[in-house]
Amino acid sequence: MSEAEAVRVIGLWASPFVIRVLIALKLKGVKYELVEEVVGKKSELLLRSNPVHKKIPVLLHHGKPISESLIIVQYIDEVWSSDAPAFLHADPYTRAVQRFWAQYVDDKSETNHALPGWLTLTQLPSAIRILKGTDDGGKDQAAEQLSAALQLLEEAFVKLSQGKHYFGGDSVGYLDIALVSYVGWVKAVEKIAGVTLLDKAKVPNLVAWADRLCTHPAVVDAIPDADKFVEFSVTYGSFSKPIINGPK
Amino acid sequence: MSEAEAVRVIGLWASPFVIRVLIALKLKGVKYELVEEVVGKKSELLLRSNPVHKKIPVLLHHGKPISESLIIVQYIDEVWSSDAPAFLHADPYTRAVQRFWAQYVDDKSETNHALPGWLTLTQLPSAIRILKGTDDGGKDQAAEQLSAALQLLEEAFVKLSQGKHYFGGDSVGYLDIALVSYVGWVKAVEKIAGVTLLDKAKVPNLVAWADRLCTHPAVVDAIPDADKFVEFSVTYGSFSKPIINGPK
Repeated sequence: MSEAEAVRVIGLWASPFVIRVLIALKLKGVKYELVEEVVGKKSELLLRSNPVHKKIPVLLHHGKPISESLIIVQYIDEVWSSDAPAFLHADPYTRAVQRFWAQYVDDKSETNHALPGWLTLTQLPSAIRILKGTDDGGKDQAAEQLSAALQLLEEAFVKLSQGKHYFGGDSVGYLDIALVSYVGWVKAVEKIAGVTLLDKAKVPNLVAWADRLCTHPAVVDAIPDADKFVEFSVTYGSFSKPIINGPK
Repeated sequence: MSEAEAVRVIGLWASPFVIRVLIALKLKGVKYELVEEVVGKKSELLLRSNPVHKKIPVLLHHGKPISESLIIVQYIDEVWSSDAPAFLHADPYTRAVQRFWAQYVDDKSETNHALPGWLTLTQLPSAIRILKGTDDGGKDQAAEQLSAALQLLEEAFVKLSQGKHYFGGDSVGYLDIALVSYVGWVKAVEKIAGVTLLDKAKVPNLVAWADRLCTHPAVVDAIPDADKFVEFSVTYGSFSKPIINGPK
């Protein structure tokens, strides 16, 4: 494969948004090179490749950069369309529903304290403080909001999966990729804060889905063990500047 | 046309996000009914159709609701694919670039004070105060940020249009729809704050594009005159609760 044809991902293993891109490439059987950023710095290659947002991940394909994780996932789906089942459903309505929930899990708005919105490294220290109850109040409210968000996703899973294994039905789809990318951090937060977020009693389908998908060959290597995320958060959690950026 | 086949849009004429949906339907020649929300209230139909975000617009098609304006635009493009040139380009890379910029103009993040992010009614009063210079400072910085955002879009236009009329090339595309929906508010803000945002000397291509697209048959009726937006903002601008919601 020539330099121009090479597929490269500018990223960092701990970023959920990078994890998405890696899973999508693995699902399609595309060989890639992960060009790791150094935490707290931005490489010349990153600044040149994503001058507008200066954020990871960036996919480099035929030497051209593509930014924003969910846009990259759709690009991968379209370019390698025949290499694996499509991530997005053939039916336009189901596609719209898949896109709706993928956007939901990345929602940055202040009114949506959904779980994943907290799992960017900038938010992580305060999320952990709240969940541990060491911040002044807010613990019950936070737990309620998280619980409500997970309940919505549980219901979405039942509707979309139609009794099958994934949000995408028989195969791993767009929403599966968008959501599973957070699971490593969710498990790390559970360990650090001593809380149960993925609760079998409350969201049984979601818990079974996460367990199942995390052992999928395309996912198992992309999401390191929770302890590695814990270690990362201990090492870098006190950074005041965003390291892993918000949903991009 | 039976009730089940009818196309209805739950919305409000002044919302850029609703305007998008109307333009997309007009471009595809789809007949629709606009079901207007009352400002400051949320109808039973809206709450039932978009229970997660409770925001306009919602497209009702075959009785099923689709939410989030850019997701709706893609849905319209996919369902009525043969009724007009596709909004999204056939080439996956160009599609990714179109999606990137459409997401950029809707970016809600605090670090991106791009123009459109300010044009939700919640932000409008403070945006106008800043631009008028009646807030404590910040005017120069705001003007600079707006100018930088418009400059980026000017450059994107030159690259994407390739000397043709629209971001989509010969035909009105996804990014044209995403961006033009803000033009009515931009012109209203110019009037209210006494500033020039769409400056011929700085962003000549963008100004020519806006003038051209606003006279397009699919756009001309969807974007009322700036004075109507001014009047709307005078009437409702002091609402403390969001009326036109953020990018959704």
